[in-house]
Amino acid sequence: MTLDVTAFLQTLLACPSVTPVDGGALDVVSSTLERLGFVVTRLDFGPADAPTPNLFARLGDGGPHLCFAGHTDVVPPGASWRYGPFDGIVADGILYGRGAVDMKGGIAAFIAAVADVVARGGPNGTISLLITGDEEGPARHGTREVLPWMAANGHIPDFCLLGEPTNPSAMGEMIKIGRRGSLSATITVRGVQGHVAYPHRADNPNHRLIDILHDLTHHVLDEGTEAFEPSSLQITSMDVGNPTTNVIPAIARASLNIRFNDRHRGDDLVAWIERVVARHAPDAEVDARISGEAFLTAPGEAVRCLSAAVEKVTGHAPVLDTGGGTSDARFIAAYCPVAEFGLVGASMHKADEHVALADLRQLRDIYREFMEAFGL
Amino acid sequence: MTLDVTAFLQTLLACPSVTPVDGGALDVVSSTLERLGFVVTRLDFGPADAPTPNLFARLGDGGPHLCFAGHTDVVPPGASWRYGPFDGIVADGILYGRGAVDMKGGIAAFIAAVADVVARGGPNGTISLLITGDEEGPARHGTREVLPWMAANGHIPDFCLLGEPTNPSAMGEMIKIGRRGSLSATITVRGVQGHVAYPHRADNPNHRLIDILHDLTHHVLDEGTEAFEPSSLQITSMDVGNPTTNVIPAIARASLNIRFNDRHRGDDLVAWIERVVARHAPDAEVDARISGEAFLTAPGEAVRCLSAAVEKVTGHAPVLDTGGGTSDARFIAAYCPVAEFGLVGASMHKADEHVALADLRQLRDIYREFMEAFGL
Repeated sequence: MTLDVTAFLQTLLACPSVTPVDGGALDVVSSTLERLGFVVTRLDFGPADAPTPNLFARLGDGGPHLCFAGHTDVVPPGASWRYGPFDGIVADGILYGRGAVDMKGGIAAFIAAVADVVARGGPNGTISLLITGDEEGPARHGTREVLPWMAANGHIPDFCLLGEPTNPSAMGEMIKIGRRGSLSATITVRGVQGHVAYPHRADNPNHRLIDILHDLTHHVLDEGTEAFEPSSLQITSMDVGNPTTNVIPAIARASLNIRFNDRHRGDDLVAWIERVVARHAPDAEVDARISGEAFLTAPGEAVRCLSAAVEKVTGHAPVLDTGGGTSDARFIAAYCPVAEFGLVGASMHKADEHVALADLRQLRDIYREFMEAFGL
Repeated sequence: MTLDVTAFLQTLLACPSVTPVDGGALDVVSSTLERLGFVVTRLDFGPADAPTPNLFARLGDGGPHLCFAGHTDVVPPGASWRYGPFDGIVADGILYGRGAVDMKGGIAAFIAAVADVVARGGPNGTISLLITGDEEGPARHGTREVLPWMAANGHIPDFCLLGEPTNPSAMGEMIKIGRRGSLSATITVRGVQGHVAYPHRADNPNHRLIDILHDLTHHVLDEGTEAFEPSSLQITSMDVGNPTTNVIPAIARASLNIRFNDRHRGDDLVAWIERVVARHAPDAEVDARISGEAFLTAPGEAVRCLSAAVEKVTGHAPVLDTGGGTSDARFIAAYCPVAEFGLVGASMHKADEHVALADLRQLRDIYREFMEAFGL
């Protein structure tokens, strides 16, 4: 059996799977994989009344074991679309739809490539897929919870390929081999309210907070590494809300976000923030949330195979990058090496999200070439 | 004619003269002064449809010329009063009412003292009164506008005594011979909004603002003077209002107030703020308002007479102070020496504002002793 990658993607795009709704998307994936011989396990985690839909599918036994990871959920379409965001309209060789590149297109390309591998008698090892219905939302009960289940059931692969759109403007530009970590924190400093004419009878929390923020923003976290940009701390908000000009307020609050490379762990950065805060305001509160640790997949045989497949199909040697936001790769990295390669991300999350059919076919071919080079 | 200071104050307290309403208060003052021989001029400045009521009253010719300044308007009574705030109830030697100490009590004490001076054939020179109906409100068309009129009409005195409540807890504690200046400013820094994961594509206005505020709050304006506390800058608010943790905002804003002594002029401080701001954010806006310059009446013969009168009546040598908020003395200081002495301010602006009848009589006696020592 072969699979028409365009038609299959159109079927997926027709499922209105805006997070947390599944819209039938996982059933489309599941039934197609079963026709290709996969054993599909539905893994619906989270609250029983509103579970997060996930699936794990496996074909073959023994090594090498490659797992493809992705998500069927999409962000809301928003307004001002040229064509219906769930209609899968093709015009001038371009297929329009919410999720076309982020990342139903990546899923369609991988499954079409697998169909080719199966058609030639493969795989010579194991191919698996980890597909979640919640990557764009809270992502608490998606990939993060599937991995421990895979570990408990002997399904951890030798390598994981995440199909997020990694190319900024053209196919072949960029493979992601790591991501920075991210943490957010809110600092609340309490003082003593009073009249500005009598500052010695008050304790101005603004001044303590300014000293804290000055120390935080003037500290160089690192100079970057060969693989990573320097870590970056950004103050995102400062909120006091005191409308009067003659009153020293009782509370001052600021929020920050740090995108950090693999020189740091989130807990260490939170401890550093707490030390700086304690220096100026011992009673202040720090409310921190680490949404992902930094990770880096050292370029080994699998990344070399992936790079070679990209160059063979597109003619471009891809850059190995670690920039940008976070992805589900942060959950996978704790279990196995992971890299990301997919479509061109320029239109993701925007109106008129679209994929060139030529790009879609190139991605299918890259995935197929990669699986062959990987030994499957 | 003698004047019962308590009864006269009760008549004044019965006028509900909550700024900007006069409530008949200036008529009570005016008719009493006319009975004592004063020439009274009503000076209603400001918009014709809602003028600010003021009066200037003069008795006598030639020097020495003492002017008493005060206001008949009061702040709103608020709730939880033991007795009606405009009923002038006396209980256990205490007279309750909005304005009892701030500052209808001061006006009543001075006019009763003047009645004594007139009764003994005085004054031996000139006594005048500058009474405004807007000190507690915007104060734009009150004392500030009466002074130029007095100058234009040859009424600038040798010395002005403002009857604000200057004693923190007991009669005789404190004469004010100066006030700090006050200015407020709002600083608005504009940056370029962007995603926290790509700070090089944004320009975080928070970081510029933090540097500005750090410089401002860590600069020592002065160490204080013999007469003044050190000038004090207080950041009153910081407002960004960015609820998202992954966005660098476009605008950050902070407000501040400076209470400054006579080492500074408001314009110079605004220029200093603008220089600090320009160093970190050349395009930022500074919106400053100087609500009063600092002033100091160097202790000369008049202040010595006033101190002596206070000590003679109360047994306490008063401190010559410059602390606290602003008063209408800031407008008077540009025209002649001015000092402030009045009742005990502890209950001012609060529920159950009250004056001890003993204090009221002491204040009348102090004002009378002062006028005698001043040569009237």
